[in-house]
Amino acid sequence: MSHKLQTAVVGARGYAGQELARLLLAHPRLAGVAPLFCGREADSLARVHPALRGIARAPAGDEALVVHPFAWDLLERRGVDTLFLATPHEQSRQWVPAGLARGFRIIDLSGAWRLAESGNRAVYGFEDKDAPAAEAVQSQAVYGLPELHRERIRGARLVANPGCYATSVILALKPLADAGLLDLEHGVICDAKSGVSGAGREPTEKTHFMYAANSFSAYGLWTHRHTGELREQLGLSEGEIVFTPHLLPIPRGILSTVYVRFKQRMTAEAVETCFATFYAGRKLVRLFRPPDLPQIGYVERTNFCDLGVSLAGDGRRAIIVSCLDNLLKGAASQAVQNWNLMCGWDETEGLL
Amino acid sequence: MSHKLQTAVVGARGYAGQELARLLLAHPRLAGVAPLFCGREADSLARVHPALRGIARAPAGDEALVVHPFAWDLLERRGVDTLFLATPHEQSRQWVPAGLARGFRIIDLSGAWRLAESGNRAVYGFEDKDAPAAEAVQSQAVYGLPELHRERIRGARLVANPGCYATSVILALKPLADAGLLDLEHGVICDAKSGVSGAGREPTEKTHFMYAANSFSAYGLWTHRHTGELREQLGLSEGEIVFTPHLLPIPRGILSTVYVRFKQRMTAEAVETCFATFYAGRKLVRLFRPPDLPQIGYVERTNFCDLGVSLAGDGRRAIIVSCLDNLLKGAASQAVQNWNLMCGWDETEGLL
Amino acid sequence: MSHKLQTAVVGARGYAGQELARLLLAHPRLAGVAPLFCGREADSLARVHPALRGIARAPAGDEALVVHPFAWDLLERRGVDTLFLATPHEQSRQWVPAGLARGFRIIDLSGAWRLAESGNRAVYGFEDKDAPAAEAVQSQAVYGLPELHRERIRGARLVANPGCYATSVILALKPLADAGLLDLEHGVICDAKSGVSGAGREPTEKTHFMYAANSFSAYGLWTHRHTGELREQLGLSEGEIVFTPHLLPIPRGILSTVYVRFKQRMTAEAVETCFATFYAGRKLVRLFRPPDLPQIGYVERTNFCDLGVSLAGDGRRAIIVSCLDNLLKGAASQAVQNWNLMCGWDETEGLL
Amino acid sequence: MSHKLQTAVVGARGYAGQELARLLLAHPRLAGVAPLFCGREADSLARVHPALRGIARAPAGDEALVVHPFAWDLLERRGVDTLFLATPHEQSRQWVPAGLARGFRIIDLSGAWRLAESGNRAVYGFEDKDAPAAEAVQSQAVYGLPELHRERIRGARLVANPGCYATSVILALKPLADAGLLDLEHGVICDAKSGVSGAGREPTEKTHFMYAANSFSAYGLWTHRHTGELREQLGLSEGEIVFTPHLLPIPRGILSTVYVRFKQRMTAEAVETCFATFYAGRKLVRLFRPPDLPQIGYVERTNFCDLGVSLAGDGRRAIIVSCLDNLLKGAASQAVQNWNLMCGWDETEGLL
Repeated sequence: MSHKLQTAVVGARGYAGQELARLLLAHPRLAGVAPLFCGREADSLARVHPALRGIARAPAGDEALVVHPFAWDLLERRGVDTLFLATPHEQSRQWVPAGLARGFRIIDLSGAWRLAESGNRAVYGFEDKDAPAAEAVQSQAVYGLPELHRERIRGARLVANPGCYATSVILALKPLADAGLLDLEHGVICDAKSGVSGAGREPTEKTHFMYAANSFSAYGLWTHRHTGELREQLGLSEGEIVFTPHLLPIPRGILSTVYVRFKQRMTAEAVETCFATFYAGRKLVRLFRPPDLPQIGYVERTNFCDLGVSLAGDGRRAIIVSCLDNLLKGAASQAVQNWNLMCGWDETEGLL
Repeated sequence: MSHKLQTAVVGARGYAGQELARLLLAHPRLAGVAPLFCGREADSLARVHPALRGIARAPAGDEALVVHPFAWDLLERRGVDTLFLATPHEQSRQWVPAGLARGFRIIDLSGAWRLAESGNRAVYGFEDKDAPAAEAVQSQAVYGLPELHRERIRGARLVANPGCYATSVILALKPLADAGLLDLEHGVICDAKSGVSGAGREPTEKTHFMYAANSFSAYGLWTHRHTGELREQLGLSEGEIVFTPHLLPIPRGILSTVYVRFKQRMTAEAVETCFATFYAGRKLVRLFRPPDLPQIGYVERTNFCDLGVSLAGDGRRAIIVSCLDNLLKGAASQAVQNWNLMCGWDETEGLL
Repeated sequence: MSHKLQTAVVGARGYAGQELARLLLAHPRLAGVAPLFCGREADSLARVHPALRGIARAPAGDEALVVHPFAWDLLERRGVDTLFLATPHEQSRQWVPAGLARGFRIIDLSGAWRLAESGNRAVYGFEDKDAPAAEAVQSQAVYGLPELHRERIRGARLVANPGCYATSVILALKPLADAGLLDLEHGVICDAKSGVSGAGREPTEKTHFMYAANSFSAYGLWTHRHTGELREQLGLSEGEIVFTPHLLPIPRGILSTVYVRFKQRMTAEAVETCFATFYAGRKLVRLFRPPDLPQIGYVERTNFCDLGVSLAGDGRRAIIVSCLDNLLKGAASQAVQNWNLMCGWDETEGLL
Repeated sequence: MSHKLQTAVVGARGYAGQELARLLLAHPRLAGVAPLFCGREADSLARVHPALRGIARAPAGDEALVVHPFAWDLLERRGVDTLFLATPHEQSRQWVPAGLARGFRIIDLSGAWRLAESGNRAVYGFEDKDAPAAEAVQSQAVYGLPELHRERIRGARLVANPGCYATSVILALKPLADAGLLDLEHGVICDAKSGVSGAGREPTEKTHFMYAANSFSAYGLWTHRHTGELREQLGLSEGEIVFTPHLLPIPRGILSTVYVRFKQRMTAEAVETCFATFYAGRKLVRLFRPPDLPQIGYVERTNFCDLGVSLAGDGRRAIIVSCLDNLLKGAASQAVQNWNLMCGWDETEGLL
């Protein structure tokens, strides 16, 4: 039983790693069982993330919380059961097969194993030494969007945690797509905006304060990697969906404005029912009724995805506004939600 | 000759009024001729806008720059020729007929006189005491977008300065619309984002720092007032264009992401030529070539509208990114550009 | 027993009210016992604070959470034991005597009852109808800074929750003041900076996004109300301490830079020991060792006050950097910390 | 005559380089004479600084504006008279002697030549190959603060443009220091705050948006390099002045809060007169009268230094608030002001 609780956060230095640390250190099922933290260099967690000082409930307090250089035998020696990989795509592509072979369950937050179709995977440019083995691993990966794949996640040994943008857009569209309401001839347009943390902790020209502050920009037109996830999960072809990401001058949060057309004339009630039915009992999705609409300020530092649908007067077009915190429901808290399911608990344990 | 130079800025306390003051006090044709400033209460300009202290080139310096309570006879006594009205819609709707009757030329920055079709005007809910007179005034109003209506502006006595969002979207679409390239059956989608100054200087719940900072929100879905301007200037029907404004957590700047489909397969060169031809010689529009695209940081505190068009691989769809500073090319510097034309000068006088 | 747990948050609409709601709805001792919320107008809590939607653990969920217009008999009918007053000074000055008379225990977050000396209270300009009664109430008020007055708070019926700036500065100085180390002839200088939420939810010229964003300003020179608290709690005369607040362009957080001189030459170890001894066992104060220093990013949305002391090479001067979240350790979480003590629990219940 | 006008901006890619480009391209004495731009790599100015596109008044427009790799013979071939060096300290330390030897006049924006006392220079850790030659160059360097050294700047061949923090603090204190009013036994405390651009364009951990946004921090306690400049220009010993810089979450602007004690009891009028007399006729210093005080919002993107002095009720202590834009009066516009003086023009040419 207790072995289930031994977790490790690999890539503890990044923003998703920080949020995983915060969530797991406070998780009610982990009282007295701090996760193992791994990163590139040995350090104390308090120095890597000063904001986390003093929140540990580990018996020995902060001092016990260290970041270890990653090593398989360390994980094995400590009896780790589940790995949270908050590592770059290439590293996850390499470590996941090795980790599964050693018997670990893995929740991978990178884009390494999200895409079933190898054509879509081309955008990542993986060079797998053992391609058939990689294909075999891919075939057991479950796309970790609990609102879509709860049952499969429960039994998974490898969960591919969705992208932050993808979570925002898929949750906005899935109820309508499943209900067969979307007029795909006209296509779906997703105009998405994200805070800077989505670009990672590495200092670059585009994460420089002077680049992002007071500004706003579109990027990755027609080519963003998350488009593959969107298409696969929603069952759309390339011409049927446009996804344009933008960089917001804020630390965290995503808002996606999604434009759809319906095959038939809809009423506001019918649309509302479609969403309410799809998300019945799913506590981490909050539905808004226009004129109230989601906004980033409402989801910042929460584990929710907020959705609101506004229907045009003609009943044929709608705008869905979808918000989440890219580091939480877009990454770390979604990973914990998946882990809760894998452990057989309520998906919201430690998240509400 | 000199009478042409006597101007008045009415509504000097607001953000557009401040930018008009800054531009006119530095205008090369106005050396030694400070504009008259009017507002609700008498005050010194230096107290109303401390940032403007010390920039006056009036012989007497700052001390001479005062804000007067508005009064027609004051304007007449001072020999004012042209009025810049940076006043609320209702006030402009009332003052413009009176001002024209007294012989002033007027550049109105409000939405009062922008819309030819009375149906569109309904969104403003004007209650004109003398409706036929209002209609007569409306008929002589010229929509003050110099890149579209230069010749008519030159002879105008009443210029209706465009809305900031509208300027951004119209400049993005007009070359394609005029060339008959737009597939309107699929419709045009304008996802627009603006900084907080667009909401004016009055403190409200939505201009509160705590509401806007770290957040981002959509508003006015399907109903924004600027949609009327867009439709009239682009010749589109209601179902052919969707315009969704959003509130950015920055002081100033607009970025519009505009999604279009073409009737025919296009090349990047053909699209580029379409824009380059339309804006040939128009120095306040800057064209970007993908992958370089406009962003708000490039236009902040400038008088430009920046445009970039990115064509999809299928040659049938494009995204136009359009940026401007909502207080300048979206308001004050566009007004000065109009005034330059009305005075027979180069449209960029004092703006480059 | 259960009567101890019935609490009410009065002034639920403000920022401190929002944080109190968040903390109390998640408080481990209040499982299934939602606090009563009062405000000026009846509304649902979800509409007043959309960010709080879905976090309620009350059996009936969000729907049960409403904001009631304030009324004494409602509080009595619901069996409320303790009132959290997040109300303006004047209102607290009036309601506290009435509430105590009805038998409520009260934690008042306003400045109404913080000051023992009537001379200091003059800055608030209270006009008490019954001055002797007010003086009697004042005499039983305990200044709610748990790190200084834990024992007295435990038995208090009225706790005057400290100001946010005051908490930051008093915690920075108290260990040195108590140890008699401060050279007061040279005086203490407190240069303090706060985010905009400190100014409250009411929209004003100074809380306008355009006023605060991209700017930074000093205000209330020589006259800020919190100076009285500082002086009383630290035992300093007017000439011995200067306190200058500034407005930071961020939503929340305070950093105070405090300049002191010592009577004698000190070593870094001696200074560190002084702080470590004073705050031994106080989990909501985190001590930093230079060159590591507190910064607002580390305390944002936490319940901590972070302190770091940097000694000059001459051993005679030091700079203390003190950080906290003004809405939490500067207001709401400090109130909960006080309440924990009044209930006989560990002071960190629900806060770590 | 025309040789005086040929300038070169070396280090054109940085923020100060960008502002120099903007100011010189619009300078009234340089109509038709674009400066030469140099940087590490060849590129067009429009790509290095897209915000500057379209503002050139050079006959050939933007296309003519390129950034050249630095080379002495290029500068000589183009007949450059004056070099603006916006380069790192080490590079300036090396290039200035070479440039002077080749007959160029130089305005160096780095810290390489600001400090007369070699002890102070130790903080920069220069390793001069030819120390006596460096000392000789140092002896002809003029500290480029025009409000203090106008006459010497007029005849200078090497101007050491002051640091941004230093400008802010020296202008705040010099009138009082020269008047002999400061009680130095109690010392002067300068609590200074700067926007992120002060840290340069290189992406680092501390210029990352996630580090700076929503935060605020002190740094360089007791050790900041600008302290040497302050001391030399104000004639203070190490123990007499404390300077503490802080990082503001804004792009640009400095506010310094300076705490002084007077030797004698002062009146507000006497203090005001002291400043007004010292800065009489200096148009780039704006004086505020309390309760009006400078704030960063008033100086952002202006060429002014704003000063306000607030006297304590006891007449013995004062707080001086000093604001400027660190990239303009703290760097580029101050450099142009120096150049104007070196050319024999009014110091405000192209700056008002």
